[in-house]
Amino acid sequence: MAKKNAFYAQSGGVTAVINASACGVIQTARKHKDKIGKVYAGRNGIIGALTEDLIDTSKETDAAIAALRSTPSGAFGSCRFKLKSLEANKREYERLIEVFKAHNIGYFFYNGGGDSADTCFKVSQLSESMGYPIQAIHVPKTVDNDLPITDCCPGFGSVAKYIAVSTLEASFDVRSMAKTSTRVFVIEVMGRHAGWIAAAGGLVADQGIPVVILFPEIEFDQKKFLAAVKKKVDASGYCTIVVSEGCHYPDGKFLAEQGTRDAFGHAQLGGAAPVVANMIKLAHGYKFHWAVADYLQRSARHIASKTDVKQAYELGKKAVELAIKGHNSVMPTVDRISDSPYKYKIGMAPLSKVANVEKFMPRDFISKDGYGITEKCRRYLAPLIQGEDYPRYEDGLPQYVTLKNVAVAKKLKAFEI
Amino acid sequence: MAKKNAFYAQSGGVTAVINASACGVIQTARKHKDKIGKVYAGRNGIIGALTEDLIDTSKETDAAIAALRSTPSGAFGSCRFKLKSLEANKREYERLIEVFKAHNIGYFFYNGGGDSADTCFKVSQLSESMGYPIQAIHVPKTVDNDLPITDCCPGFGSVAKYIAVSTLEASFDVRSMAKTSTRVFVIEVMGRHAGWIAAAGGLVADQGIPVVILFPEIEFDQKKFLAAVKKKVDASGYCTIVVSEGCHYPDGKFLAEQGTRDAFGHAQLGGAAPVVANMIKLAHGYKFHWAVADYLQRSARHIASKTDVKQAYELGKKAVELAIKGHNSVMPTVDRISDSPYKYKIGMAPLSKVANVEKFMPRDFISKDGYGITEKCRRYLAPLIQGEDYPRYEDGLPQYVTLKNVAVAKKLKAFEI
Repeated sequence: MAKKNAFYAQSGGVTAVINASACGVIQTARKHKDKIGKVYAGRNGIIGALTEDLIDTSKETDAAIAALRSTPSGAFGSCRFKLKSLEANKREYERLIEVFKAHNIGYFFYNGGGDSADTCFKVSQLSESMGYPIQAIHVPKTVDNDLPITDCCPGFGSVAKYIAVSTLEASFDVRSMAKTSTRVFVIEVMGRHAGWIAAAGGLVADQGIPVVILFPEIEFDQKKFLAAVKKKVDASGYCTIVVSEGCHYPDGKFLAEQGTRDAFGHAQLGGAAPVVANMIKLAHGYKFHWAVADYLQRSARHIASKTDVKQAYELGKKAVELAIKGHNSVMPTVDRISDSPYKYKIGMAPLSKVANVEKFMPRDFISKDGYGITEKCRRYLAPLIQGEDYPRYEDGLPQYVTLKNVAVAKKLKAFEI
Repeated sequence: MAKKNAFYAQSGGVTAVINASACGVIQTARKHKDKIGKVYAGRNGIIGALTEDLIDTSKETDAAIAALRSTPSGAFGSCRFKLKSLEANKREYERLIEVFKAHNIGYFFYNGGGDSADTCFKVSQLSESMGYPIQAIHVPKTVDNDLPITDCCPGFGSVAKYIAVSTLEASFDVRSMAKTSTRVFVIEVMGRHAGWIAAAGGLVADQGIPVVILFPEIEFDQKKFLAAVKKKVDASGYCTIVVSEGCHYPDGKFLAEQGTRDAFGHAQLGGAAPVVANMIKLAHGYKFHWAVADYLQRSARHIASKTDVKQAYELGKKAVELAIKGHNSVMPTVDRISDSPYKYKIGMAPLSKVANVEKFMPRDFISKDGYGITEKCRRYLAPLIQGEDYPRYEDGLPQYVTLKNVAVAKKLKAFEI
């Protein structure tokens, strides 16, 4: 039997470094042409597999693949699509096998977070459950940093760096303005369930910035929060607030859900930042500014963490090496050895223990009052934002690659998802 | 008579490079110790002069002053405070003279935008109107890029670079997600009256990004706008919208003023971005994400334009040189010689022609449909974002300087503003 081809796809929210993992996968596969044939990328994640919409990455030059390392976003397109269980939707699994067979695919690399690990895990069971020999390896990725076992997740370090740098810079700004103008700056960050990204804002406290963090792990107490802000402003003349999009009241209602309606009575979707800012204005009268970083934070390849880029690449590379060694249903992990100097090795975890498990901030990473980070958290975060890995610029703009993404000729009938 | 001391202050909204101008002023004054005594900085702008709250910059090391070049925000504090006319508030002018006399101040360097140029102009008239010999030189600064005569304003190039880079990165992100998730990304940028910053978002069109820009100079037409967005999404699968905070309806009402009220009936201050995003969702059903960059854009020293940093420094330096040559009531300017290769020289304009004049985007910088930039605009903007000027990092964070800001001993009675 001829050597098998590989399938690679990107899943869920993309990051500044998911393409660095793609680069690690494809470059490593190219180095092992005796073992792995072509790497076919799914256009828009697993949907590309289901619809037989495959991209032939062998049509891309080595230079283009190398440029993925410094290009944010998902070069092959991503998707938000979770495979149902085998019992609930056998048709989809049969289709996957049909596509894999048609294109001689024996390796399945899936690059994503918790939901995607579940998809990858299900695919990894196909050998056993449906008799199709496949090796499925999950490549971790999530800005939320909420995958278990691995010490951190590629994508997170760069968002953390972006938030720490941006919070520092905006805090310098508000400090300059506080005498006659803005006294409070609110920045809203991602993290619906876990406060890892918000915690990164806490790193600026080392530089003397008065900062109050609102974590999703800590139930929002308006009175206590307003008192904490006043205390900071009284002491320093200004204050920066980092609010996680997932910050919520004890009853589970998000701060962003204020039941606001526009002039026509339509419910308005707003951010948590303006809600927090207005709340402070009403209570204390402080002039405020607020920002919602949204996609800017997770796509900010221009200020990516060098550590993060390196790990993203290494995990992609390791995934291919594990496949070549015969592994299935695993995920390469970052195993921390020491904080300072920062040392780690690339390890491995079984997917059964990764899929659908969320890792929250430990309580001892959050200060007693609930509004800051502890020294333990600082020691954890600090190495993850270390180092700069600047993209190449031309005419003032980063030169990010857009691949040709040549489609592989279809061999099968169309499939409706 | 002993040589005179200089007064320097920062005014209005601060920028990523206003401290580079401060660096230019102070370093150049230090090189001309035969002509200029000490440089006293006003703590919080002109308020520092009125309240005799002066900072002795001679207490700062050469290294600290050099570090200003790569530190965002206003190192001495800024203010939003405009001197009234001499007729309306003679008391303030008398106080200024009292403070200048007490501290032997003969040079007045004011670093700000249009309102500040007005303050500087009024001070420059003191020799004539009140018999106190002073040379007042304005150092231009404004992210809004709306000062007349000068080709561009320090602070603008760096914001433009930040917005162009961020728009590019977020657009790559939404392009990755568009198949099953977000199809429209909206980024709100500064610029209440002039669309210069919004225009910078248009630079990404060169890289094939479908972008729609909402300028304050173009009255908002909802139906036409929604059609423009649909056309882009139909053609490319996604679309990025750059909306200026100053975008407004024909009756002058800002998009951000939607008359929204929270559950308690309080009027809500929101951004233009969520308004635009919700509008698109209602009309076309596209999933959206939105960001409000706010202070992040103007404080983003980490991605400052090298051209901008250089010009900010040069204009500060030139201000001192003009003072030494005996000039009063002028502002050094950037005079463009050619677009490509980009060449300019530092010129000079009379403050009487600068104060209170706003420079808007010329209509021929905006495309016919009102939603993009023209080639002429692109040629204007491109050189201003050229080059990177990275700050020094340690432990993953930029090392920005915080000065000692040692106060000069007061000699006068307190003054109530």
